[in-house]
Amino acid sequence: MKSDLDALMQARNLEALIIFGNAEHNPPMYYMTGGGHVSHATLIKKRGAEALLFHGDMERDEAAKSGLKLISYSKYSLEELAQKSNGDSARAGALRFEAMLKDAGVTAGRVGVYGTYDISSVFALLSSLQKINSGIEFVGEPREDSIFMRAMETKDEAEVERIRRMGQITTAVVAQVKEYLVSCAVRADEVLLKEDGAPLTVGDVHSKIRLWVAEHGAELPSGFIFAIGRDAGVPHSAGNPTDLMRLGQTIVFDIYPAEAGGGYYYDFTRTWSLGYATPEAQEIYDQVKEIFDKLNENFDLNVPFKNYNLMTCEYYESKGHQTPLHTKAPIEGYVHSLGHGVGLNIHERPFSGLTAGDDQRLAPGVVVTSEPGLYYPEKGMGFRIEDTLWVRPDGKMETLVEYPYDFVLPMKKWKK
Amino acid sequence: MKSDLDALMQARNLEALIIFGNAEHNPPMYYMTGGGHVSHATLIKKRGAEALLFHGDMERDEAAKSGLKLISYSKYSLEELAQKSNGDSARAGALRFEAMLKDAGVTAGRVGVYGTYDISSVFALLSSLQKINSGIEFVGEPREDSIFMRAMETKDEAEVERIRRMGQITTAVVAQVKEYLVSCAVRADEVLLKEDGAPLTVGDVHSKIRLWVAEHGAELPSGFIFAIGRDAGVPHSAGNPTDLMRLGQTIVFDIYPAEAGGGYYYDFTRTWSLGYATPEAQEIYDQVKEIFDKLNENFDLNVPFKNYNLMTCEYYESKGHQTPLHTKAPIEGYVHSLGHGVGLNIHERPFSGLTAGDDQRLAPGVVVTSEPGLYYPEKGMGFRIEDTLWVRPDGKMETLVEYPYDFVLPMKKWKK
Repeated sequence: MKSDLDALMQARNLEALIIFGNAEHNPPMYYMTGGGHVSHATLIKKRGAEALLFHGDMERDEAAKSGLKLISYSKYSLEELAQKSNGDSARAGALRFEAMLKDAGVTAGRVGVYGTYDISSVFALLSSLQKINSGIEFVGEPREDSIFMRAMETKDEAEVERIRRMGQITTAVVAQVKEYLVSCAVRADEVLLKEDGAPLTVGDVHSKIRLWVAEHGAELPSGFIFAIGRDAGVPHSAGNPTDLMRLGQTIVFDIYPAEAGGGYYYDFTRTWSLGYATPEAQEIYDQVKEIFDKLNENFDLNVPFKNYNLMTCEYYESKGHQTPLHTKAPIEGYVHSLGHGVGLNIHERPFSGLTAGDDQRLAPGVVVTSEPGLYYPEKGMGFRIEDTLWVRPDGKMETLVEYPYDFVLPMKKWKK
Repeated sequence: MKSDLDALMQARNLEALIIFGNAEHNPPMYYMTGGGHVSHATLIKKRGAEALLFHGDMERDEAAKSGLKLISYSKYSLEELAQKSNGDSARAGALRFEAMLKDAGVTAGRVGVYGTYDISSVFALLSSLQKINSGIEFVGEPREDSIFMRAMETKDEAEVERIRRMGQITTAVVAQVKEYLVSCAVRADEVLLKEDGAPLTVGDVHSKIRLWVAEHGAELPSGFIFAIGRDAGVPHSAGNPTDLMRLGQTIVFDIYPAEAGGGYYYDFTRTWSLGYATPEAQEIYDQVKEIFDKLNENFDLNVPFKNYNLMTCEYYESKGHQTPLHTKAPIEGYVHSLGHGVGLNIHERPFSGLTAGDDQRLAPGVVVTSEPGLYYPEKGMGFRIEDTLWVRPDGKMETLVEYPYDFVLPMKKWKK
């Protein structure tokens, strides 16, 4: 949680942290500011002190919404600094940045750098500053283990309610898509038809999904997956827009909207087969559902998340599928890990890969996905079931939003 | 244009360039890959050679759509590298990255780093690599002058048509918003009413705008501005959702949608006053429109863009307004510069600030905004008119999409 930041900085011997970039679509900045339309901002937080937000003059109103202590960039005259630097604008920028750090009480020590922003300009700025001030050491951290990923790993109840609200929107959109599909007319060759009699394509469904998500005021900043047949068998294929929607093929619908402006995500997947399922597809779906249910029965407080990934591998291997347990980077069978944390990042701690640390646990306050899948692109099919779960303070695992697990969706205007 | 990259690399003595991050919402990566759902990718381009795209196994289909030469990260075994590094995962990551560079033919020299991505992890990676290989020097560039900003500054006709298409969507949405507003009923106190009789708020209009943009398949990755009264007088205020929509107040509607997935932007602003305008507002609007028209008459091939910003300052000062020409960082009057380039970035070269270089010109192929404005937050009003223009290869300036400049919008169900 956010209140862990000072302790994390202490443990890593960080004197201060700096976040670059916009408040929107920039998880560390969003975390500290609460979002809002503030672009090209800089946040500096000295350990044990309040955070300071530097912003452009034109964005003072939006910046004020953060509730943070504010300083406008216009306090620092780039013109004067450029004169001092004989017109060397890189040096002038570095001098301004040094003055900003000083205003935040930072004159030396290890300073962590964060934010999703233009790498090139930050690299140039930090290199220039290093040349004029060698007392400050800038430090990066691996994404999955940064102090922000650590702090964000456990959520407070207000954060969980925001995630749950996105889950309610997510499942409402999934229900709309389902209702739309099962109401379509079906051609003799089992292709779905639109109201105008033209074949329904995956691209048509993509448009509907985008529209319905927007109607609920949410965004799809990381895209979404609605794929059928072979593409459903390639876990990160978004779906081929020109594919026709047909009966009896597996559809993987993985949807992960976020609050507008780059806020909290939800993550959810269902696998459907319209009208009927082939016996082979039904058998594989049942296996995915069986391990999905078994996981839900077994999730337990403070157990390393990867243990459940291992359980999934062992179950699938007992059914004859390849998994990462005994196959290096399989491209069919179980090809990814069980799940991941969800918050301001669609993928965050705890992770469940077989090599993840034991400290990535089902600790109170984490919000994780459980998404066992099986993929057979050469057979033209793929399967994944995913819910987002919260480890409550009382240690119980709670699926944040319930939604049915039907695989075969009966078509209203078609009978086998 | 993209074909300028090798020459730009040569001029800056860059042996290679590296782009980090996702293909979506990451202008340099989008520029090189054409977008698509490829996350956590790395692109390495040696000078004079084809670009190489490194991607995760699960994203091979999406990566293939780029048409680039591909290498999967799974070619490099992090496990083996971790053993070689005695479990030091930072060192293992650096060794993998060194191997990727080698596969791209890069073993020494100056290498530019680019991309909108997690700064912390890139900084950590580059620092680690620098420790094991001091022959490669990583170089950042100021955002406004990076080789990508230089290459992107001039567009080919295919890029211009994509921007124009976004302009058509933009003006279609603006027309929908206008039609919605002028059709509203009006209460005795001049507040607009929704169909259900409740007062219409700025937040309600924001929701409509988001929905209508989504219906057209576009995105609002940088937000938008629809603000009334005092908020219209603060150029970057997005608008206060709880403000009521009223007659006779200035509305600044600045909308800059992009192609879904983080593609090309359009940028457009109109200022409206519903039902009637106060004489003071009408007078100021007329001044903004006068300089807007005068600029259009005067834009000329290869002239430095800032000359037109200067022209705008001089005009406004002749009318008694503060401008950056003689007032440092004014917060009323003319408080920003005239315009900027538009492309995969909402703000890109050429820039028009008074200190911009003379090389930021109206060269053939640039696409720029012209957006003179005037702001009086204490008077509760603000004004801006903005179109996006293209300097055609024949040297003519073309407004990419025409839209009327009405200030007062007559209300269908109300008469003064």
